[in-house]
Amino acid sequence: MPLNILIAGVGLIGGSLGLALKGSSSVNKIIGVDSDLEALKKAEELGAIDCYTSLSEGAKQADIIILCTPVNTFASIIDEIMDLLRPGTIITDTGSTKEKAMNTFAKLPDYVYVIGGHPMAGGEAIGIINADKYLFENAVYVLTPAANTPSDIINQLKAVLSVIGARFMIMEPRYHDEIVAVISHIPHLLSAALVNLTNADRDKLSMAAGGFRDTTRIASSNPKLWQQILFSNRESVIKYLDQLIISLNEYRDMLDNHDEQQLFEQLKRAQETRNSIPYMRKGLMPGFSDIICIVPDRPGIIGELGNILGEKHINIVDLEILHVREGDGGTIRIGVPTYENACQAVDELKEHGIKAWRR
Amino acid sequence: MPLNILIAGVGLIGGSLGLALKGSSSVNKIIGVDSDLEALKKAEELGAIDCYTSLSEGAKQADIIILCTPVNTFASIIDEIMDLLRPGTIITDTGSTKEKAMNTFAKLPDYVYVIGGHPMAGGEAIGIINADKYLFENAVYVLTPAANTPSDIINQLKAVLSVIGARFMIMEPRYHDEIVAVISHIPHLLSAALVNLTNADRDKLSMAAGGFRDTTRIASSNPKLWQQILFSNRESVIKYLDQLIISLNEYRDMLDNHDEQQLFEQLKRAQETRNSIPYMRKGLMPGFSDIICIVPDRPGIIGELGNILGEKHINIVDLEILHVREGDGGTIRIGVPTYENACQAVDELKEHGIKAWRR
Repeated sequence: MPLNILIAGVGLIGGSLGLALKGSSSVNKIIGVDSDLEALKKAEELGAIDCYTSLSEGAKQADIIILCTPVNTFASIIDEIMDLLRPGTIITDTGSTKEKAMNTFAKLPDYVYVIGGHPMAGGEAIGIINADKYLFENAVYVLTPAANTPSDIINQLKAVLSVIGARFMIMEPRYHDEIVAVISHIPHLLSAALVNLTNADRDKLSMAAGGFRDTTRIASSNPKLWQQILFSNRESVIKYLDQLIISLNEYRDMLDNHDEQQLFEQLKRAQETRNSIPYMRKGLMPGFSDIICIVPDRPGIIGELGNILGEKHINIVDLEILHVREGDGGTIRIGVPTYENACQAVDELKEHGIKAWRR
Repeated sequence: MPLNILIAGVGLIGGSLGLALKGSSSVNKIIGVDSDLEALKKAEELGAIDCYTSLSEGAKQADIIILCTPVNTFASIIDEIMDLLRPGTIITDTGSTKEKAMNTFAKLPDYVYVIGGHPMAGGEAIGIINADKYLFENAVYVLTPAANTPSDIINQLKAVLSVIGARFMIMEPRYHDEIVAVISHIPHLLSAALVNLTNADRDKLSMAAGGFRDTTRIASSNPKLWQQILFSNRESVIKYLDQLIISLNEYRDMLDNHDEQQLFEQLKRAQETRNSIPYMRKGLMPGFSDIICIVPDRPGIIGELGNILGEKHINIVDLEILHVREGDGGTIRIGVPTYENACQAVDELKEHGIKAWRR
């Protein structure tokens, strides 16, 4: 029987979930709830929700409740709805940390089912205006079911969410929180510390090249949101921040003591680990082969490249403009699905007078 | 009178300089020198040099010598050539740190002119095979002249190098080294430390999303090269690494003490500083406006986008594929020169049935 889905919080994540679930045969209707009426209207207009109502009214009608609000709102939401829920209601969330959320959900009556959730998607863009039905495609989506949640209920939630195209992983809340501390929360802190190390000095910023820009891109994220995320996972963040500070002190001492070999070994280990990431992700993202080409700077040149490769049925899966020269040209990196595509693409581009080579 | 340019070290930087200087009216011939004969042959084949010879023979013929070899080779090169140079020869280099290099050059006879140099270009790609005549276009190129180098000699070098399209900045070697410690060397160390914090753990790496990938991209760089760069600038690197470790310890204590407001202020300061970078770079790179669009996944779609915009003379200056869904579609960010272009581009794409909006 198609289910009523309540989405609490129709921002980027809630709105994108609504767009992705819309039209699924397992969904009866999608109800939106938000403290921001304008966001609800926009979500309805975009088709991310079928209707909107109050939190308590929505909670009474819901078969599945998805909390997409900031993690520090969960406690008050649970207090408001816990006595209104029908037996068998599934409660899940999309918060970036799981242990604290699961502790909050523990007070719910035992006739509702708790399954924590964390879709690893989204970026600097926020709000319903940036919602994208494809946001979760190929993304890792962690589920942290409560100990007493039956596996057929977990499977039911996975079945409903399957249309969003994510790759589900079941894990313990604490284990999840340690992983995201390392791969997401610590990088944010580091990125902020690195930007602040410049002291906003004009000479330093104006000389900042690609490496600095990449390393600090996430420092542009919403500071309020990240303050909340960091504090919601403070134990794991502190644990790994301590480890990182120890490593940085070791690197410092290697420099101070002229331990060239030891520092080399750390850099080498990092290089090897970093290079292993794309291969480990093969199941998630298609692997691809890179080519580089040099093109003149004029309107439509990227269209021409696309046409040359499109005619030969070579799909562009990635494209990055490496250097731009106003009025002159640019160096472009193009990712294509296979090595064979890359060889063929280089030949085709050369035949059209474009300097190209495999990287 | 056209000059003889000696390029010592025909890798990515030396080769790209050769390609960019080739054909300039101020250049008589470009002589290559390298310990790697294959690289010299390739450089000649690609047109990066006119001929190659031994270091001592090249030094005798040169009007301008550009050292493009690793910084730790400078001392032995200077020893070998210092008694062979003609009066008035200009010696410059492309090393990533300047104080140590300038100290090495200080032993040269006072009838030759020393001007240190550091073009802020290049990436992970290395070797003559990746040489690109446009590598230095719009890049910052720092010059650190010795105290006794006359300004007309500095202007002469700038005039010869002007064809490469870089933006020259004159500064003190020590000041340069402090800047690059912050915007380049410390980010490399941090990036390596962050990757090593994962302990190459499979679960962590397989969940690593965009933020981690961006923050650690430079950890893929050549570890031998970076070991040398870091040690060549060890005093400045240690100085700023100490400052960074102090900041990280402060952030750690804010988490530990529940100082939510203080951590927020650090994140906010970082966001504001980070967001100021593109505006400060306006002179270097054209500013641009972003649009987002959602497209189906099929060969030639990027070509179509390019054609739609190209027909309206809207130039694509940046393009990034944000999400890829195999067999389905993708979300693409397109940078165009102006706000007006962005509005027009959104209208055009919508008219062609492509969902698009300004970011």
